[in-house]
Amino acid sequence: MELDQIVQEVQAAVANNDWQQGIELLRPLPAPDLAYVLCECDPEMALNFLRRYTPKEQSSIFGYLRPAMQSELAELMSRSELTELFALMDHDERADLYNRLSEDERLSILPGLAHAEREDIRMLASYEEGTAGAIMTSAYISLSQNLTAAEALQRIRQEAPDAETIYQIYIIDDQRHLIGTISLRDLLLAPSSTKLSSVMVTDVIHCRVNDPQSEAAHFIAHYDLISLPVIDDTDRLVGIITHDDALDVTQEESTDDQMRLGAVDGSPAMSLKDASIGTLYRMRVFWLVILVFGNVFSGAGIAYFEGLIESMVALVFFLPLLVDSGGNAGSQSATLMVRALATGEVRMRDWFQMLSKEITVAVLLGVSMAAAVSLVGLVRGGAVLAFIVATTMILIVIVGSVIGMSLPFVLTRFKMDPASASAPLITSICDAAGVLIYFNVANLMLDFPA
Amino acid sequence: MELDQIVQEVQAAVANNDWQQGIELLRPLPAPDLAYVLCECDPEMALNFLRRYTPKEQSSIFGYLRPAMQSELAELMSRSELTELFALMDHDERADLYNRLSEDERLSILPGLAHAEREDIRMLASYEEGTAGAIMTSAYISLSQNLTAAEALQRIRQEAPDAETIYQIYIIDDQRHLIGTISLRDLLLAPSSTKLSSVMVTDVIHCRVNDPQSEAAHFIAHYDLISLPVIDDTDRLVGIITHDDALDVTQEESTDDQMRLGAVDGSPAMSLKDASIGTLYRMRVFWLVILVFGNVFSGAGIAYFEGLIESMVALVFFLPLLVDSGGNAGSQSATLMVRALATGEVRMRDWFQMLSKEITVAVLLGVSMAAAVSLVGLVRGGAVLAFIVATTMILIVIVGSVIGMSLPFVLTRFKMDPASASAPLITSICDAAGVLIYFNVANLMLDFPA
Repeated sequence: MELDQIVQEVQAAVANNDWQQGIELLRPLPAPDLAYVLCECDPEMALNFLRRYTPKEQSSIFGYLRPAMQSELAELMSRSELTELFALMDHDERADLYNRLSEDERLSILPGLAHAEREDIRMLASYEEGTAGAIMTSAYISLSQNLTAAEALQRIRQEAPDAETIYQIYIIDDQRHLIGTISLRDLLLAPSSTKLSSVMVTDVIHCRVNDPQSEAAHFIAHYDLISLPVIDDTDRLVGIITHDDALDVTQEESTDDQMRLGAVDGSPAMSLKDASIGTLYRMRVFWLVILVFGNVFSGAGIAYFEGLIESMVALVFFLPLLVDSGGNAGSQSATLMVRALATGEVRMRDWFQMLSKEITVAVLLGVSMAAAVSLVGLVRGGAVLAFIVATTMILIVIVGSVIGMSLPFVLTRFKMDPASASAPLITSICDAAGVLIYFNVANLMLDFPA
Repeated sequence: MELDQIVQEVQAAVANNDWQQGIELLRPLPAPDLAYVLCECDPEMALNFLRRYTPKEQSSIFGYLRPAMQSELAELMSRSELTELFALMDHDERADLYNRLSEDERLSILPGLAHAEREDIRMLASYEEGTAGAIMTSAYISLSQNLTAAEALQRIRQEAPDAETIYQIYIIDDQRHLIGTISLRDLLLAPSSTKLSSVMVTDVIHCRVNDPQSEAAHFIAHYDLISLPVIDDTDRLVGIITHDDALDVTQEESTDDQMRLGAVDGSPAMSLKDASIGTLYRMRVFWLVILVFGNVFSGAGIAYFEGLIESMVALVFFLPLLVDSGGNAGSQSATLMVRALATGEVRMRDWFQMLSKEITVAVLLGVSMAAAVSLVGLVRGGAVLAFIVATTMILIVIVGSVIGMSLPFVLTRFKMDPASASAPLITSICDAAGVLIYFNVANLMLDFPA
């Protein structure tokens, strides 16, 4: 809230040509907040403010800007500014930025950077998006096992300004193979003449460059790590992933699941505000059109029973109500199951056990809802209709729940994302099932020749 | 996968009465993995294995166990075992466990604990669930500003074994007011004779005990913190929240949003496997029954047009397809908007700007879907029906999208959780709107006297 007020005041100051006032307003803000305000300005204005900071400060603020704003600023910056920025930015963030630059921009900055920096950028930028390699940083502290604790502390003091974290130190051999790790806490507690080899932990929890980033984040969460080392195909240490990146990944993954459950395709990192009409269209059209055809089955079911409907149009009154209830119960089951599968709490082999529980719950829910709906049935069409509607309701809720809980398992079985069992997909399937159940029950009870 | 294999081998070993084999299998596992395996055993077996570890190790493993297993083990343990466990567990975890104990169990362990421990447990256990106070720990390092860097390091070494983190140090005055902070990194880099007062950061990002835990987690994510200090009503430092807790909260919050979007009530920390039938029933029945009555409106709409339907039963074929498309488009919009509101990317004042974008996208989607469905319309009922169905589709997708994107805003406006705009709720509203649109369009085109 306060930040939004600062945004308004800064823009008012600039509108009055009072840049000094704007600078004063921004001065007390920490980098993430400053970046937030700058993202609300137009790029020229943002660059103008950014230039009031030292190069080191600029690189820190820049890392917190939204990707779209980073790209726009990079375009506006002079070649020397951009080169200096690249030399100072966090290694993982600059590799991401590098991947978003145009070919021209890349070629213009590379010659200005030291050889080691160029190699580092190329290495980090080469990993596929979504892998551990793509989010790791190369700014970690690695030491030899022959150092004493005192020597190690000395080295850490020297390297601290360039390292992303100094709280977990990695021990490597001459070929850069990861052979151990020690926390700064344990290092501080170790007697100063002890060799690292005798205090380091040798079973190091790690991941590989091509592991999915969600797995790396899961490791960090599961083992409460500050950072997770990443090794390449030859077991060499090439980077680390820090706890704050794990938090970002976790948020992205949950957005991704949420979007799938809502039948939306697209990158979870996307900004809804910045997204183009075309992007938004593409994110949604696939499932909407697929589901149109899915719903043809419900229509066909209805068409099959046209004679029955014509003879008792009152049945149609209850159609949306009954059919939706199956979809709603199914969406609930799918929501719970997708989550439990994502956290690993429930696994494939638990399906049968979950099923019997689900059916019990569904029967209870179905009876409750049947009670609610049979009142409406009595009023609208008498006892027979009430009975038809109540029976259908129980069956539909059971079938819907079983579909909703089973689909995520089925998708997992076929190596698909269980979160693709979106509410709209479940609704479509349950609709078709619901139509068939409803009219068959009605047919049976009314003894109508279909 | 490997862990599941260990579970099976351990259980096979115990079945053969070969406990030693089981112990050997568990020995190499880090605490979180060991806890995972123990949670798959029955409580007696788990306790038997747990007792093979030192009290300190036991307390660490215990902290990773699922809440239900913790409670069962606490019941099985002797009074002295439980008291020792309490003395050694992480402060935030033991406060949570304390809150789950029976009154008898609490009374049996309190006398065995030191006065300071008892006070600490009572203090931490007193905060309401969901607040920053409820997830904070009191095991932090706080120092006076008059210490030199060297003295501070000495103190940190002494206190390290009991502190949850030593990587961020808090500076307090005589009344325990939070007046500054310094990272261990900056402390290591400071000259040894410098006073903390001259190197500490004085604008400390903090939260208050009664702030929601989601806000605390948001601060940690936004500012990339290792830990966040928590102050009470009198500005005294009372605890810290660490980065790993922020990760847990983030996961919980996203589960919470996902459950709301799926129309499920209940605690996100709940285990689907451990939940009783009664709990599962209560989580789902409220929304299901509410939505039954919501769908009565759709039924009433259909009833109103009974004459029209009787005259052209083919219209019913397209009813689920059209009506569901509105709900699907609406679910997509709501999904995107709930997420954008949750991350703070979109705010109340953005509603109008988002609306115009949404309508443009909806028109494009509506036209695409109309094209798909008019084919079906042509085949089933000729040109007029195809035209009715196509026109209806465009209108329904626009109306559904606007409802889906606006409802989260409306809920926010009335201080409700935007994620309550669940797919099933949107579907019910869009269904009623869809029925009215469809039959009104048909009425108009067929010129039927309603």
